[in-house]
Amino acid sequence: MDKLLFTPGPLTTSMTVKEAMLHDLGSRDLSFIKAVREIRKELLALGHVSQDTGYETVIMQGSGTFGVESVISSVVPESGKLLVLINGAYGERIAKIASVHKIPYHTLVCDEDQTPDPQETEELLTDGSFTHMVIVHCETTSGIFNPIDAFGELAEKYGVTYIVDSMSAFGAVPVDIAACHIDFLVSSSNKCIEGVPGFSFVIAQRDSLIKCKDQADTLVLDLYAQWIGLENDGQFRFTPPTHALLAFRQALRELAEEGGVSARADRYRGNFNTLAEGMSVLGFKEYLSRDKQGYIINSYHYPEHAAFDFKAFYNKLNDRGFIIYPGKLTKANCFRVGNIGRLYTKDVQALLQAITEVKSEMGF
Amino acid sequence: MDKLLFTPGPLTTSMTVKEAMLHDLGSRDLSFIKAVREIRKELLALGHVSQDTGYETVIMQGSGTFGVESVISSVVPESGKLLVLINGAYGERIAKIASVHKIPYHTLVCDEDQTPDPQETEELLTDGSFTHMVIVHCETTSGIFNPIDAFGELAEKYGVTYIVDSMSAFGAVPVDIAACHIDFLVSSSNKCIEGVPGFSFVIAQRDSLIKCKDQADTLVLDLYAQWIGLENDGQFRFTPPTHALLAFRQALRELAEEGGVSARADRYRGNFNTLAEGMSVLGFKEYLSRDKQGYIINSYHYPEHAAFDFKAFYNKLNDRGFIIYPGKLTKANCFRVGNIGRLYTKDVQALLQAITEVKSEMGF
Repeated sequence: MDKLLFTPGPLTTSMTVKEAMLHDLGSRDLSFIKAVREIRKELLALGHVSQDTGYETVIMQGSGTFGVESVISSVVPESGKLLVLINGAYGERIAKIASVHKIPYHTLVCDEDQTPDPQETEELLTDGSFTHMVIVHCETTSGIFNPIDAFGELAEKYGVTYIVDSMSAFGAVPVDIAACHIDFLVSSSNKCIEGVPGFSFVIAQRDSLIKCKDQADTLVLDLYAQWIGLENDGQFRFTPPTHALLAFRQALRELAEEGGVSARADRYRGNFNTLAEGMSVLGFKEYLSRDKQGYIINSYHYPEHAAFDFKAFYNKLNDRGFIIYPGKLTKANCFRVGNIGRLYTKDVQALLQAITEVKSEMGF
Repeated sequence: MDKLLFTPGPLTTSMTVKEAMLHDLGSRDLSFIKAVREIRKELLALGHVSQDTGYETVIMQGSGTFGVESVISSVVPESGKLLVLINGAYGERIAKIASVHKIPYHTLVCDEDQTPDPQETEELLTDGSFTHMVIVHCETTSGIFNPIDAFGELAEKYGVTYIVDSMSAFGAVPVDIAACHIDFLVSSSNKCIEGVPGFSFVIAQRDSLIKCKDQADTLVLDLYAQWIGLENDGQFRFTPPTHALLAFRQALRELAEEGGVSARADRYRGNFNTLAEGMSVLGFKEYLSRDKQGYIINSYHYPEHAAFDFKAFYNKLNDRGFIIYPGKLTKANCFRVGNIGRLYTKDVQALLQAITEVKSEMGF
């Protein structure tokens, strides 16, 4: 049996999702084109929008960051200016992308345990120089949830194009894309929809997407051209990860069977609560205050005890069949545990049992 | 049962390759890191090079074109000049990439049924302005094999960095990367190694790779940074397609079990010959002369008969469980049939039987 993945992805997926990959389909064949059509339509529905209400799904090969770079580099023109709201590594990465593409940008950086301040943001927007604004929905660095609706109100008020990196949230955190005034939302196959890695997807407001024509500075990451390719004949411009897409179609069906986004949110929240309670009993301290903490990822301070060593802790859990996120926050000495993927309360309880054993074995 | 894919990819793969995807591994976990290490090492061996002799493998998420764009945009500096040898759509695509990235380039274009002329190429190289040269190994447009060794000699003689797009050839056409003076060779997971789509890979001469530092104009397609990431801790900078990589490791093992590149070449050549003989009996005319025709893809002129309609022909074969390449050459009215993937002589014979039936049914 595979180890259980308590990480931000790739995740533990259902066997039926993986079994959907036991087929080779031609990427230009009708049965595959139909699968892609179903996926693109269903993703819009998850965001409470549709083609009829003016939205489109674009699928981009590669990881989530490929999708983010596709959006940033295709959407913001040379004459534009991007406001990047940052409270973690993924916000920083967006600024890096803007920098690499020589896109004019400004960052508003706050501490990793805080959400960007709407008032400060509004002060920046009032100067009128910004054309685009981007924020990370669930900052995987800490697991913090940023209030994308409040910033959407500001985007609407100041007429800036609004981009949301919802990588670790979409599919398990309810989002009404139109109500949040989102022009471009990016997520990926191997997060809360519980598919396997291989592509990202962008849900775009069509009018905003049309403005990106001829704006990209790459071939493969050209969001507009990718959309036109898919619209013209339902085919990808370049070979798609056919197996990962079949797995994703199955994952979408299983999400619907589970009861949709709110049911999945409930399961993940259940995982979160079980973990939080158990870890508290074990003496671990949460990094985030409860009002800012999302239910996707929990961050814990390293125990202040000489016997604690993260690498040993990680390895001993690994030996027991549990993989936690093997990295620390940018600044604080914390470790992270993911609650997402095909994991249930019983799996979290098993992890807690393993942590109890390891704690005792290590003597902290 | 899945339809058989007689296309240039995605291909029919073995069930054991697909079954390797029935596992979820953490992308930062040791067992996955080991798999990636095995893949990177084995790919060098397929090209008759190794880390000891100064070569490196870089894996890039996305399709083959993502790999090609990564190389072109990371390798050729602003002060450089790229000579693009073109005899089909994939050569044209490389020129497009150079153009999008504002890389100085010049194209030498010849007919799709001809290989670029070494003498003409040498005349261009003698002017001393070119720093890089690129050619497609097997031009998927027609199936023609370009003599990459002869152009490698020229690259060596004139001191230009030599890039080979060996997408449809590597793994089934023997290549000695060092002997051909290749600095960068690009191929992908879903071609002759018979993996599933999801990534491309680049085999690079280390000294040439090191020169690419800080040269890329994107984040995700930065070949040098991707290499450094893999070298530092064996991990990808951004989420890799873990399942596709596990499938690929299995595919590499099956390639070795089959007897390596020369054995695979023999099987594909057998498929080619069976198809060529059968199609000749059925009256189809080959597009390429036999001395230029590779054994990866066969191109046939549309029959000159009013009853022939390619779309109907394609659909009727599809109904019988055979998928041929659903596209035509850029210029000539031809259709294409691939010989690669988990296909054997008996499969080609079954395809020929289906073509015989369809021909009779359509009355051409």
